[in-house]
Amino acid sequence: MKNIPFNKPYLTGNEMNYIKDAVDLGKISGNGFYTKKCQDLFQEKYGFKKCLLTTSCTDALEMAAILLNIEPGDEVIMPSYTFVSAANAFVLRGAKIIFCDSREDHPGMDESKIEELITPKTKAIVPVHYAGVACNMDLIMGLANKYKLFVVEDAAHAIDSYYTGKDGIKKALGSIGHIGAFSFHETKNIISGEGGMIAINDEQFFDRSEIIWEKGTNRSAFFRGEIDKYNWVDIGSSFLPSEIIAAFLWAQLENLEKIQKKRITIWKSYKDRLKHLEENPNVKLPVIPAYATNNAHMFYVVCNSEEQRSSIIEKLKKANVLAVFHYLSLHKSPFYQEKYKGPALENSDKYSRCLLRLPFFFELGENTIDLITNTIDETIKAN
Amino acid sequence: MKNIPFNKPYLTGNEMNYIKDAVDLGKISGNGFYTKKCQDLFQEKYGFKKCLLTTSCTDALEMAAILLNIEPGDEVIMPSYTFVSAANAFVLRGAKIIFCDSREDHPGMDESKIEELITPKTKAIVPVHYAGVACNMDLIMGLANKYKLFVVEDAAHAIDSYYTGKDGIKKALGSIGHIGAFSFHETKNIISGEGGMIAINDEQFFDRSEIIWEKGTNRSAFFRGEIDKYNWVDIGSSFLPSEIIAAFLWAQLENLEKIQKKRITIWKSYKDRLKHLEENPNVKLPVIPAYATNNAHMFYVVCNSEEQRSSIIEKLKKANVLAVFHYLSLHKSPFYQEKYKGPALENSDKYSRCLLRLPFFFELGENTIDLITNTIDETIKAN
Repeated sequence: MKNIPFNKPYLTGNEMNYIKDAVDLGKISGNGFYTKKCQDLFQEKYGFKKCLLTTSCTDALEMAAILLNIEPGDEVIMPSYTFVSAANAFVLRGAKIIFCDSREDHPGMDESKIEELITPKTKAIVPVHYAGVACNMDLIMGLANKYKLFVVEDAAHAIDSYYTGKDGIKKALGSIGHIGAFSFHETKNIISGEGGMIAINDEQFFDRSEIIWEKGTNRSAFFRGEIDKYNWVDIGSSFLPSEIIAAFLWAQLENLEKIQKKRITIWKSYKDRLKHLEENPNVKLPVIPAYATNNAHMFYVVCNSEEQRSSIIEKLKKANVLAVFHYLSLHKSPFYQEKYKGPALENSDKYSRCLLRLPFFFELGENTIDLITNTIDETIKAN
Repeated sequence: MKNIPFNKPYLTGNEMNYIKDAVDLGKISGNGFYTKKCQDLFQEKYGFKKCLLTTSCTDALEMAAILLNIEPGDEVIMPSYTFVSAANAFVLRGAKIIFCDSREDHPGMDESKIEELITPKTKAIVPVHYAGVACNMDLIMGLANKYKLFVVEDAAHAIDSYYTGKDGIKKALGSIGHIGAFSFHETKNIISGEGGMIAINDEQFFDRSEIIWEKGTNRSAFFRGEIDKYNWVDIGSSFLPSEIIAAFLWAQLENLEKIQKKRITIWKSYKDRLKHLEENPNVKLPVIPAYATNNAHMFYVVCNSEEQRSSIIEKLKKANVLAVFHYLSLHKSPFYQEKYKGPALENSDKYSRCLLRLPFFFELGENTIDLITNTIDETIKAN
């Protein structure tokens, strides 16, 4: 029987043509024709004020930390149930990470618990839109305004997803905070192998963002003819990806609607087939709040125990299907557990133990979804 | 008349096939089949003990700074005539950069001036093998041993180039210091658009290098089956490039000998046609010391003034040829000039004002080299 992977990168068909074209244009280093095309499209389609492609979402978060002038003594609030890079990007600049618990009904951070974590040292809040589902941005931006904090949206999962505020205005995730960070890692909706983007929504960061992106030099201004030599003017890194990566990404972006339509179909198939579990106290299905859209980044179930999750993983493995758990609470990690002095984060730990991600990729067929959901049903009944 | 660019990326022919193959293998994120192939080849061919591909040479240098535990108060010695990333990588960790002058006969750092820059705070020396031509590594490693310092070879230009020590042993550049850093930027001999590699020659850094490379996690050990969950264990970043980049690089590496043979022919053509200038006090040609090999990364001339250089650039521009200058002394940069308290670095400033790089790429023809060298001759005579 065929192996069903957890993820399978999807090629739209034009990736190789555009890479070849970039080579023919004579430039395959960063910040060329395809990089600009991608950045322009993101800006126009989603209303991000300024976009810069990066080699990863990690690098976008590191750019954010540099732009915010994070330094030793600063505190940054983020969920514990998230990817290590959200924390590391700020730790590299010397920040102390203040971990917030997840919501009871969703792995995203519990917005009601943020305010009690704010101190005079707090500099930024980093909400993570887990599975592409928006955090309550009205609450988060309200706190940011009240305490003069920056908000960096970790939108790694959240391309083409939206939040509708109390004012009724629908905004793309990543366009609401001062800065947004996206991932185009092969497991995401739109991919370039490794890849990411920083979306800058606060104009005060525009000029410096280009400098930090280009190794701390004013090379972008040089290429625009604004200066006659480029020079070392700031800290920075080589955050910009090759045109090879940008050309690949452009082929994906041209097919964004097709990809999203298919992924939403897959998500709904999972949901329909598992709908009866909504009445089962043993397993929880994803919740999409009224203010959020569903970009079909991921389908997961939350088991009632680690044992139940392991038994489902085992049963699926016997059916040649790879389902995987996700993050481990960062506040309990070998790197941070001794530094962590806060309260127990029970929801975060629950998702660490109990959340199970099901295979999700463009070419996933209905028959396979049947196989997977039937196997889950059988395992839950047998327990 | 056709424009002659300064650089033109060269495709060997198999780049697209290998990218397609990586996609078919189901993995285009980092640390896959082609990444390992490239790393293994580098290790075997050049005797680097452990290689990890990175998204840029900048990132390889940043990894080095993290591996060496560079922290505020530490001093790092490097040439002022070099690329900004060598400095920024260490500045990002809090180091103070101590700039060393270039040699009279070569843009590489003057080895005889290093010892006087060493203080109890010195932690590392970063020699840059400019144009792929070795620094005197016996002298540098001797100082490192004497004062217990680390050596990070910035071998961005120096793939496939060697140094022969007093012991008569010929070693690949990047394999002599504790760590080496390489670039595969589109202007280099072997390219992947943007790209780089860290070569680790000191075993004490092996385990931690994998962790830092994989975002501060023990993911590499997880994939080898050594642990059952991967976790946050250290600082780190996403230093690893996409398999798309590694697949491209592999196609280049398969043609390394062909590429090098052609580049050396081009270099010799330049040298032969400009040989008569060796008796002209107005212009200097590249010098290759007896202990160094020539990997034909670059051909440059050192003019006798900035005015002479500008007139050659202008004359070549009229012939539709793009020749370019190179670094500006970092100690005089807007970012560092106020922090710099050392002596004047006259050779560094001389190369900033007077060094001119000539077009250099695989497809550069003999007729074009004639055109370029004749134009240089005419301009010098007219001055």
